[in-house]
Amino acid sequence: MKRGLVVQKFGGSSVANVQRIQNVAKRVAGYRKKGYDLVVVVSALGDTTDELIALSERINKNPSEREMDMLLSTGEQASSALLAMAIHKLGYDAISLTGAQVGIITDMQHTKAKIVNISADKIKEELKNGKIVIVAGFQGMTPNHDITTLGRGGSDLTAVALAKTLNADICEIYTDVNGVYTADPRIEPKAKKLSSITFDEMLEMASLGAQVMQSRSIEVAKKFNVTIHVRSSFNKKPGTIICKEVKRMEEFVISGVTLNKNEAKITICNVPDKPGLAAKIFKEVSGGGINVDMIVQNVSHTRQTDISFTVNRSQAVKAVRLTKKIAQKVGAGLVLKDEDIARISIVGVGMKSHPGVAARMFEALAKHGINIEMISTSDISISCIIKKRFGEKAVRALHSKFGLS
Amino acid sequence: MKRGLVVQKFGGSSVANVQRIQNVAKRVAGYRKKGYDLVVVVSALGDTTDELIALSERINKNPSEREMDMLLSTGEQASSALLAMAIHKLGYDAISLTGAQVGIITDMQHTKAKIVNISADKIKEELKNGKIVIVAGFQGMTPNHDITTLGRGGSDLTAVALAKTLNADICEIYTDVNGVYTADPRIEPKAKKLSSITFDEMLEMASLGAQVMQSRSIEVAKKFNVTIHVRSSFNKKPGTIICKEVKRMEEFVISGVTLNKNEAKITICNVPDKPGLAAKIFKEVSGGGINVDMIVQNVSHTRQTDISFTVNRSQAVKAVRLTKKIAQKVGAGLVLKDEDIARISIVGVGMKSHPGVAARMFEALAKHGINIEMISTSDISISCIIKKRFGEKAVRALHSKFGLS
Repeated sequence: MKRGLVVQKFGGSSVANVQRIQNVAKRVAGYRKKGYDLVVVVSALGDTTDELIALSERINKNPSEREMDMLLSTGEQASSALLAMAIHKLGYDAISLTGAQVGIITDMQHTKAKIVNISADKIKEELKNGKIVIVAGFQGMTPNHDITTLGRGGSDLTAVALAKTLNADICEIYTDVNGVYTADPRIEPKAKKLSSITFDEMLEMASLGAQVMQSRSIEVAKKFNVTIHVRSSFNKKPGTIICKEVKRMEEFVISGVTLNKNEAKITICNVPDKPGLAAKIFKEVSGGGINVDMIVQNVSHTRQTDISFTVNRSQAVKAVRLTKKIAQKVGAGLVLKDEDIARISIVGVGMKSHPGVAARMFEALAKHGINIEMISTSDISISCIIKKRFGEKAVRALHSKFGLS
Repeated sequence: MKRGLVVQKFGGSSVANVQRIQNVAKRVAGYRKKGYDLVVVVSALGDTTDELIALSERINKNPSEREMDMLLSTGEQASSALLAMAIHKLGYDAISLTGAQVGIITDMQHTKAKIVNISADKIKEELKNGKIVIVAGFQGMTPNHDITTLGRGGSDLTAVALAKTLNADICEIYTDVNGVYTADPRIEPKAKKLSSITFDEMLEMASLGAQVMQSRSIEVAKKFNVTIHVRSSFNKKPGTIICKEVKRMEEFVISGVTLNKNEAKITICNVPDKPGLAAKIFKEVSGGGINVDMIVQNVSHTRQTDISFTVNRSQAVKAVRLTKKIAQKVGAGLVLKDEDIARISIVGVGMKSHPGVAARMFEALAKHGINIEMISTSDISISCIIKKRFGEKAVRALHSKFGLS
C-alpha cells in the first residue's frame, strides 16, 4: 500500500557509531514496511567533519575553500553508503547518492554555497525502482562540476529542499532533542515540548537562540510551505511540527521563552540628531561583515541622541572599531561596549490578538527586580536586554507568567 | 621553461600522515619549479581503505559492491584534497579532481571496474591554467554516474592510463621500495636494484611474486608503451625504469629470481589418456572462479597420466572440491593436494639468446640438494616447484649462479 513520500534527515549524532547507524536503518525500514516511499538525508558520522577540518589545518591553516569542500563532502558520502549497507542488511533495497549524483546544483560560493536548482529525476527513478534513496547531506555541485558544501545546517537544508522538489508529504528532521520546547529545559525544568509551532515563530525562536534548527532551513521551508517534523532519533515520541498555521487553545498567548547570552551591546553616545546619520553608521558596520541584531534609538529632547545595538560577541571587537571610526566622522561621542548582557525574548503568534503582552512581560521582570536596558519588538516577539546574571531567572519568571509551566 | 608532462603516483604509505603528505608536496613542487607540467595520482591515506572496509563489515558482512565503491572512493578524494592544500601552502597552484570529475569512465563491475574511456579535457584545461592537477586514484564512474573503484593496484592503473591519455613523457610510480630488485633483498642481501627492465620481464616478475606493481597496470603500460619509473617516495635515488626494450651488458642472462610461497599443488592421478579430458577438467575448475597458474602433464607410457597444477593457496580447498567432482566424472583416480611447495623462477629476456639456461638452473638446484617436482617454462622465464623449506636457499643459489650477486 502506497502511503506517500517522507523525507527524513539524520544529523551527525544520530549516526555517530555503528549501533546508531543500525538504529536509523531500523527506523527507516519500519517506515518502508508501512508502505512509505523514503528519501533519507544523512550528515557525516559524529565528529568526522571536525576531524577532517583539524587534519586540514595541520596541513594548511588557510586552506582553499574549494579543496575544503572536496575534503568535507567525503564525510556525508561515506555515511550515506554505510546507511545503505545497514538497510540492505535488514532486507530492504536502498541506494546512496552524493549531492552531485542527485543533481543538487549550487552557486560557486564554496563552504557556504546556495542551492540554485535540484534535478530530482535520478531520485524519482530510484524511488520508482522501489528503492529507499539515501542522500549525502550538506553538499552539491556547481554547474562546472566542482563539489560544494552548504555551510552550517546544510543537511537540514538538503532535506527541506528535497522535500519541496519531490513534493513530499512531510520532512522529518531527526536530532538529539525531543522537539521545540517552551524554554530551554536545562534552565526551566517545567518547560514543555510544543506539539506544533508556526514557521514565523520558529524563525524567531531560531534566531533568538533556540538551537534546534538553523534559520536558513526554516526560511526555505516557509517560502515553499514544507511542513517539518523535528523529533528525536533516540526514541519514537512525536516531536514538534513546524508549519504555516497552528490551531491552539486560546489560553496560550506565547509559544516560548528564549535566552541568548552570546551578544554584546554597543552604544554610541551623543549622536547629532540629523537625518541619515543612523543609515551612515549601520552601513559602515554591516559593510565590515558585522551582523547587527537589535537596534534601539530613543527620541531625543536635545539635539543629540544615543544609539545602541547588539552584535554577536565574537564580532564585538571589530564592531567597536568600525563604530568608533564612523562616530568620529559624524561628530558623535563615546562608543561603549557592554558584554554583560543577556537577551530575553518571548515569541508567539498569539500576541497579535492579545493586547497587553508587552506590559505583562515588563511587569514580570520588574516583579523579580530585573532592570530592562533595551526593548525591541516584532510582530510576534518581544525582546529585552537585561544584565547577564538575571538571564535564567527571567526565563523562569516569564515561563510562569504566561502560563507555560 | 616547459619541460614536458610527468604523471606521478603516490601510494598509501607515501601519504600516510601529515608529514609525508608535506614531503610529497615538496617533491611535486620541486618538479614544478623545474618547469614540468604535473598530474599527480594519490591513493588513500595509509590504512584508510582497510579501516573503511572494517567499518563496513561491522554493519554488513556482505556489503553491496556499489555501496562499497561509494564508501571506499572517499579515501582517495580526501587525500587528493589534502595534497592540493599542502601544495598551495608551498605557494604553487593545484586543484584536486575525483575520478568522476576527470571523466574516467569504467564498466559497471563494482570493486573491480575496468576503465573503458578517459576524457582528459578537464585535466588539459587545468594544466593550461597553470595548475598542478591532483587526481584521486583507484576510482572512476560508470556512464550512469555511479562511482566505481578499480580493484587492487587501481591507483597505479589510474596513473598509467592517464599517462597514456595525456601522452605524458613518463609515469613515475612512487612506492616504499627503491625499485625492482634482482631478488627479494630480505632473502638475498646481495640482490641489486635493476636500473631498467622490460614490460615482459616485469610482467613475469609481478605474476611470479614480486610485490612492486600489479600485473594489470604493467599490461596496460605495455599495451600503450607507457614508460614507467618505479621509485621510492622516501629518497631521491633513481629507481627502475620499466619500458619496451632495455639495452644491457651481455653477461646478464637473467634479470631476477622470484619466489612464491603462496601456491598449492593439486594432482589428479590416473587420468585416462583421451583427447579433450584436460580441457574438461580445467573448464570445470576455472568455471568455479579459480585462477590456475602452472599446469604440467607428462607424456604417459601407459593409457593413464597424472595432471598437476598450482593455484593460490586461498583457493586450494575450492579447487580440490571442483577437481574431485570432475575427476569422478571422467573416470580419473585420486586428487591430491600439497601445500608444502614453493615456486622458484628466473626471469630475463636474455635467456632467449642464451641456450642452456634451464640446464644451468636445474644444475644449481641439484648442487644444493633441492629436488624439482614440476617444471614450467615461458619465453622469458623458467619456474620450478620445489619443497617450501628450500625456497630461500634456491633464491640465493640461482642469484649467485647467474652472476647477479
